[in-house]
Amino acid sequence: MKKTLVALAVMAAAGAASAQSSVTLFGIVDLAVQYGSGSTSDRLRLVPNGYNSSRLGFRGVEDLGGGLQASFWLEAGIEADSGIGQATNTNNQASGATTNTGLLFNRRATLSLAGGFGEVRLGRDYTPQFWNLTVFDPFGTNGVGTNIIPSAGVTGVRASNSIGYFLPRNIGGFYGQAQYYMGENLEGAATEDDGTGYGIRLGYAAGPFDVAAAYGNTEYAAADVTVWNIAGSWNFGMAKLFAQYQQDEGVAAADRTGWLIGATAGVGAGEIRAAYSQTEVDTAANPRSRKLALGYVHNLSKRTAVYTTIARVRNDGGAALALGGAATGANTSSTGFDLGVRHSF
Amino acid sequence: MKKTLVALAVMAAAGAASAQSSVTLFGIVDLAVQYGSGSTSDRLRLVPNGYNSSRLGFRGVEDLGGGLQASFWLEAGIEADSGIGQATNTNNQASGATTNTGLLFNRRATLSLAGGFGEVRLGRDYTPQFWNLTVFDPFGTNGVGTNIIPSAGVTGVRASNSIGYFLPRNIGGFYGQAQYYMGENLEGAATEDDGTGYGIRLGYAAGPFDVAAAYGNTEYAAADVTVWNIAGSWNFGMAKLFAQYQQDEGVAAADRTGWLIGATAGVGAGEIRAAYSQTEVDTAANPRSRKLALGYVHNLSKRTAVYTTIARVRNDGGAALALGGAATGANTSSTGFDLGVRHSF
Amino acid sequence: MKKTLVALAVMAAAGAASAQSSVTLFGIVDLAVQYGSGSTSDRLRLVPNGYNSSRLGFRGVEDLGGGLQASFWLEAGIEADSGIGQATNTNNQASGATTNTGLLFNRRATLSLAGGFGEVRLGRDYTPQFWNLTVFDPFGTNGVGTNIIPSAGVTGVRASNSIGYFLPRNIGGFYGQAQYYMGENLEGAATEDDGTGYGIRLGYAAGPFDVAAAYGNTEYAAADVTVWNIAGSWNFGMAKLFAQYQQDEGVAAADRTGWLIGATAGVGAGEIRAAYSQTEVDTAANPRSRKLALGYVHNLSKRTAVYTTIARVRNDGGAALALGGAATGANTSSTGFDLGVRHSF
Repeated sequence: MKKTLVALAVMAAAGAASAQSSVTLFGIVDLAVQYGSGSTSDRLRLVPNGYNSSRLGFRGVEDLGGGLQASFWLEAGIEADSGIGQATNTNNQASGATTNTGLLFNRRATLSLAGGFGEVRLGRDYTPQFWNLTVFDPFGTNGVGTNIIPSAGVTGVRASNSIGYFLPRNIGGFYGQAQYYMGENLEGAATEDDGTGYGIRLGYAAGPFDVAAAYGNTEYAAADVTVWNIAGSWNFGMAKLFAQYQQDEGVAAADRTGWLIGATAGVGAGEIRAAYSQTEVDTAANPRSRKLALGYVHNLSKRTAVYTTIARVRNDGGAALALGGAATGANTSSTGFDLGVRHSF
Repeated sequence: MKKTLVALAVMAAAGAASAQSSVTLFGIVDLAVQYGSGSTSDRLRLVPNGYNSSRLGFRGVEDLGGGLQASFWLEAGIEADSGIGQATNTNNQASGATTNTGLLFNRRATLSLAGGFGEVRLGRDYTPQFWNLTVFDPFGTNGVGTNIIPSAGVTGVRASNSIGYFLPRNIGGFYGQAQYYMGENLEGAATEDDGTGYGIRLGYAAGPFDVAAAYGNTEYAAADVTVWNIAGSWNFGMAKLFAQYQQDEGVAAADRTGWLIGATAGVGAGEIRAAYSQTEVDTAANPRSRKLALGYVHNLSKRTAVYTTIARVRNDGGAALALGGAATGANTSSTGFDLGVRHSF
Repeated sequence: MKKTLVALAVMAAAGAASAQSSVTLFGIVDLAVQYGSGSTSDRLRLVPNGYNSSRLGFRGVEDLGGGLQASFWLEAGIEADSGIGQATNTNNQASGATTNTGLLFNRRATLSLAGGFGEVRLGRDYTPQFWNLTVFDPFGTNGVGTNIIPSAGVTGVRASNSIGYFLPRNIGGFYGQAQYYMGENLEGAATEDDGTGYGIRLGYAAGPFDVAAAYGNTEYAAADVTVWNIAGSWNFGMAKLFAQYQQDEGVAAADRTGWLIGATAGVGAGEIRAAYSQTEVDTAANPRSRKLALGYVHNLSKRTAVYTTIARVRNDGGAALALGGAATGANTSSTGFDLGVRHSF
């Protein structure tokens, strides 16, 4: 699936070659025909992330001896339907938003030192508070079937200027990480801490069972964004069940709550996926969206799959969430459909 | 010329290595000193596409068994004189134009499944209506000698959000492709179909003979853009002759017609190139530009060549086409000159 | 440190492989926690260039026979703290400045032909007038310890649209280069030569001794930018001493002068670095900034190092230079601190 570009010091005189170091070039191209319908307007598109997000990356690991490793990871999102890159955010605030044209390492740009003590990771990386939303979503937060629980604010998925620490592996099933990230503003202003925050995630995985909880807080003079979630999965062999619960504040008009239940089941070379998820905001109107998604992935190889998903969302309390790029009125429904191919390299 | 970055799963314990999959990294850097002169103003530049367009790409093929193949192709244009990338268009309409700063896969971003049935290709790709203009141009639509017949509108060269089909090879000399591409607008507005269209191309190649015809149509509320062309080449051994004819409407003030005749001839390690092309618009004034181009390419190797081209365009009927970045007045002439190096990898 | 991605034509039938050509993929990820303090405001950041500039590049060399070589070099700066690319300038003038979002080959985009006669290099490249500032700076013009002598104007570090010539190596210790670069404006306007210029650098290196001088001139209708500098180093074994002197005009309010003295000393697997540098502008107020920097780099391997630098700048005559992103008032001091990791591949 991933390939290592072996570094060879070509000895011109002798024609001999010896391995020195390695960089891995990796990526995914995922393209799907997507149709969305809503009460207001429908839309037909080609989209670059029906099953997995299209990307191109470079990464490598160096063994420093004594159990110490240095590694880097540069990963750029690609809108493969038009060839453009994806936007990033340079300071975890609205002012740091970029436009999405040229390729850039929005998905991850990190440098790590790792050893028996765990891993220290610097750069742009996923926030701890995001992982539960995607790991425990049968649809991996992609395509029309994606988890309806929203990521919380600018740092809901990733943060720039971060310093992270990961627990070492193999500590009795426990895993975890903590992250601090900087808004990088000049000190003294009311907004000096905007975009600065932290997150923490702790989990336990053993046999068929996996559960994790996370908390994150990002400071803004307007209103801090805080989020916590807990999620887990249980693998019954025939099927794997998923569940999530999240609360956030500081993003929506009031506190926001979401939950998901889902399942995947292997069928020969394929996999059936299903999920029901809900999100609601705790205002008087109590806007709420509920989604049911059903999909099938057929693996042509470990690297290549064809897939299809159908999902329907129902809105009430004034909510107007639409699927597949459609537009729908408040308190109406919307349907989305994906048919695509995913190829990784 | 192209190299395959062989994927090796390095067995850390044994030091053994075995091939798993492959990605090909490829590209061209082409830089030329270009001088253009016109009646209004001259210009001296370094340009990144005197013979071939500068680019950097990644591509790979996976054998899925049973004659089926999955493949991807990501290719970014490079303005190698300054290091910037090239613009693309995300929705085949004016609103989807990007600025040309960061690197992005404007030249091609595709995912394919191919087999005995042919190839289905998704993503951003050349339109069928473009191929005849470049394949049958001795100057390959690059440099001051480039074919004067203009590509027709935003989708004249490439389209985003496309679904293409290619006939299998080896069907008695026939070849062909069809493509559908989406503007991706919300339904309901007058411009809902803007940027949506299709193209088709059919050809026949046998021995020294190659001929192809293409048709394309892209919808816009203002005016649909339609184009058809036919072109061919005949290889006499000593020389190869080229001819093209094209009509388009919906781009210029009235229907536009263009034609080209040209030739290439091998001379040792080099090649002489010559072309005469014309384009005119069917208004009362009948603006017309006629170009004569002559060039020589000297191959230092299969990958590296030095080249030079000189071209002169004459305008009448109010036309004011200038070469090499110069500016020229209506009904005057303009001359362009390239001297450059092309290196592929 | 750098690795060559060997091109292998995989013989599917036989499993045999043979080298064809090569592209080298190379890069650096450097991230440091940087703190700057000034009289006005302090700042804490993660920065991508405390020791070396973060980058990703592709380069290759082709042997053409007869002692002739073709080569290309494409190198993009990376702001690894957020994953974005770096800005470039397409025409050596203010109008050619790009914004720094997508990845692009701002650091170098060149195509070369080299042989016994030396090297001819086309594209975007460092200007001759820059090299002395960085080669003879113990801090390599990076991080809070960087040389305080400023590069002179838009072409102070690099120029686009350049044609360069480098003397062959091994001519008795002498080395040198000359470069011409184009602003690419239409002729006739008062600003027609803006961004057009040239630079030259000559040096001599023998045993422990290395000295070089450079001159550069870039035309602008407002005021030409000219710069000359001389610098050298003397390796005493235990320590290596550095010295620089530069004058430029056309950038600051009046002629500007800068000088530096510095030293590096190896200590086991590490290196101590120190420099004192000054810059002043020849107006009546005579604004001046003086910097003292001290650092230590500890090499974990040839590719990976941890480092720290502390620097302090004192301003007088109205100068207000601040370090580490801080802000400081006129005639006050500012302190900067770096603690980081550099990993090259």
